[in-house]
Amino acid sequence: MTEPRWLSESEQEVWRAYQTATKLVGESLDRQLQRDSGMPTTYYEILVALSEATGRELRMSELAEFTKSSRSRLSHAIARLEENGWVTRRSCPTDKRGAFASLTEDGMGVVRAAAPGHVNEVRTVLFDGLSTDQVKQLGEISAAIVAQASKGCPSDPCDE
Amino acid sequence: MTEPRWLSESEQEVWRAYQTATKLVGESLDRQLQRDSGMPTTYYEILVALSEATGRELRMSELAEFTKSSRSRLSHAIARLEENGWVTRRSCPTDKRGAFASLTEDGMGVVRAAAPGHVNEVRTVLFDGLSTDQVKQLGEISAAIVAQASKGCPSDPCDE
Repeated sequence: MTEPRWLSESEQEVWRAYQTATKLVGESLDRQLQRDSGMPTTYYEILVALSEATGRELRMSELAEFTKSSRSRLSHAIARLEENGWVTRRSCPTDKRGAFASLTEDGMGVVRAAAPGHVNEVRTVLFDGLSTDQVKQLGEISAAIVAQASKGCPSDPCDE
Repeated sequence: MTEPRWLSESEQEVWRAYQTATKLVGESLDRQLQRDSGMPTTYYEILVALSEATGRELRMSELAEFTKSSRSRLSHAIARLEENGWVTRRSCPTDKRGAFASLTEDGMGVVRAAAPGHVNEVRTVLFDGLSTDQVKQLGEISAAIVAQASKGCPSDPCDE
């Protein structure tokens, strides 16, 4: 390895503030969803992705990409959501590219019931503390991070 | 509950970009640490916090706060780090406020060996994609989120 590219003192401060901020936001949202809707954030993200898809159905590989989950983690979550009656799975006999997950009416009801509290929490922990300029900057910074982080990624991030 | 405070379309975009960006950064760092140092990010954060403490030792409650971990998750991690010989635990007979964790020489060696690759990854996925202005903005935004998110928090976030 070449000479390490250490962070300057001010970069270290930014990095620590970023770490604390993202942890606090994640924890607040986890806590709110668990308390008010009895589910972890990953489950909610899966349900929302399905609720927004055409026919409320997605290929498992698409769902893994939307939710940035590994295949094994996603399969586990989908199995639990199926037990709850919120999602159904079907495999397509003419398409070897795999199984589909669909949102049930019950699942859609769960999304509708959970959304107001979740969005309110997103506002409270994130947007309420930022100026209009900062919200815009956060969007641009996030897009730049996504572009940068995606550079080194394989085209299909889903591990079997 | 009062009328839900829905996000505008542009706020939704910012929120999604934020979610994707923070997930990608987290995953890149997890992957790098697991690949090059054989440990999850939480373990690395614990070792770093101890390495920077006076006498390379911290009260478990301090460590929980530094790493924003629940007590149970932290205890589990410390037990594993102790098995590896990187950390030792001791309880203080005159102080009922609990146990201390110390970094061993081996543990310090692990931090020293892991740090260059980790810092390099932080640069690659985060700082390299941002302008100097954006780094400054990210610091300010993160500080504002921390201030906002901390408003509703209890003074001691550690659950037993």
